[in-house]
Amino acid sequence: MTDYIESLQVLAEKFASLQGVGKKSAMRMAFSVLELDEDSAKEFADAIVEAKTKIHRCPICGNLTDKDECYVCSDLSRDTSVICVVEDVKALMSIEKVREYKGVYHVLHGAISPVNGVTPDKLTMKELIERVGQNEISEVIIATNPTQSGEVTAMYISKYLKPLGVKVTRLAYGIPVGSDLEYADEITLGRAIEGRRDV
Amino acid sequence: MTDYIESLQVLAEKFASLQGVGKKSAMRMAFSVLELDEDSAKEFADAIVEAKTKIHRCPICGNLTDKDECYVCSDLSRDTSVICVVEDVKALMSIEKVREYKGVYHVLHGAISPVNGVTPDKLTMKELIERVGQNEISEVIIATNPTQSGEVTAMYISKYLKPLGVKVTRLAYGIPVGSDLEYADEITLGRAIEGRRDV
Repeated sequence: MTDYIESLQVLAEKFASLQGVGKKSAMRMAFSVLELDEDSAKEFADAIVEAKTKIHRCPICGNLTDKDECYVCSDLSRDTSVICVVEDVKALMSIEKVREYKGVYHVLHGAISPVNGVTPDKLTMKELIERVGQNEISEVIIATNPTQSGEVTAMYISKYLKPLGVKVTRLAYGIPVGSDLEYADEITLGRAIEGRRDV
Repeated sequence: MTDYIESLQVLAEKFASLQGVGKKSAMRMAFSVLELDEDSAKEFADAIVEAKTKIHRCPICGNLTDKDECYVCSDLSRDTSVICVVEDVKALMSIEKVREYKGVYHVLHGAISPVNGVTPDKLTMKELIERVGQNEISEVIIATNPTQSGEVTAMYISKYLKPLGVKVTRLAYGIPVGSDLEYADEITLGRAIEGRRDV
């Protein structure tokens, strides 16, 4: 079949090497590349090399950037005394979309999961503890994912930061806004009851 | 947000320019590129340029190839007196997967659809008629899609080929094997009754 069109097969394999791209989609995308004009295909190729070469971790917070510092750290209007700790850049982007948070971030690049070989030293945990120890930090908001490894990570962070005298908080768990109680799982519902507030 | 990481945004737009790739998937893929090592990213970029530069239509049948002729046309064991007419290369690949068809192909690169500006001259219709006229062809199997434009195209082809004295056939319509009559639509079911055979 397509094995006979070797360069198409090679391209499809490259697409399939990306996270979450199956073989069928990869082949569809490879075909789609053939439908681009020559210049667009060249630009696509250049964009891959450029992104890979230019983008690196922000030396302050670990966010991705193609500048010296990321756009959050270089934004003078942000409150650098509040650090929100996230597992990855996608989480950071989700919080930024809300446009409510005015502090800065710390990206761990993962969550503790010994089973998968992710120990604290594989994350930017040391950098976080140093950063909190060396700067005037009023609050650290832990925004790791509400999963088992996210929880373990949150507990680990708070264990190391609390002795430094910094206020450590965790994002609230509860029923998602606009959803129906009927469809909430028991754990979420349990947390929602536990975290109930006066009205 | 990501607009601040310009090279990531540019890359995501390239992915989104491919058929069937939405904005969210495009961004996920762009992130995934960052996780490749530098060599793999370079290879990915090269694969795009290589596929785009090397792959062209087979001068005989219109199939895609990176050789002079496509692998079907250059396979001497194939029966060149039987031509299967398909709308696109994906259809050709589907038929090849069955490993039952031993003839050759003709790829139209579309189906007649005047509303979308696809008139017969936009397809490889002239090439097909010439090919049938100039060679010893015993049968032309029309395997255009079972859609309105596929049907129009099939009718158009048979109108031009029958006067050349060649046998023109169409793939059978009917209930898909392994499916349930209950879920067959009326048109398919109607065609299945119409095309019933002795057992």
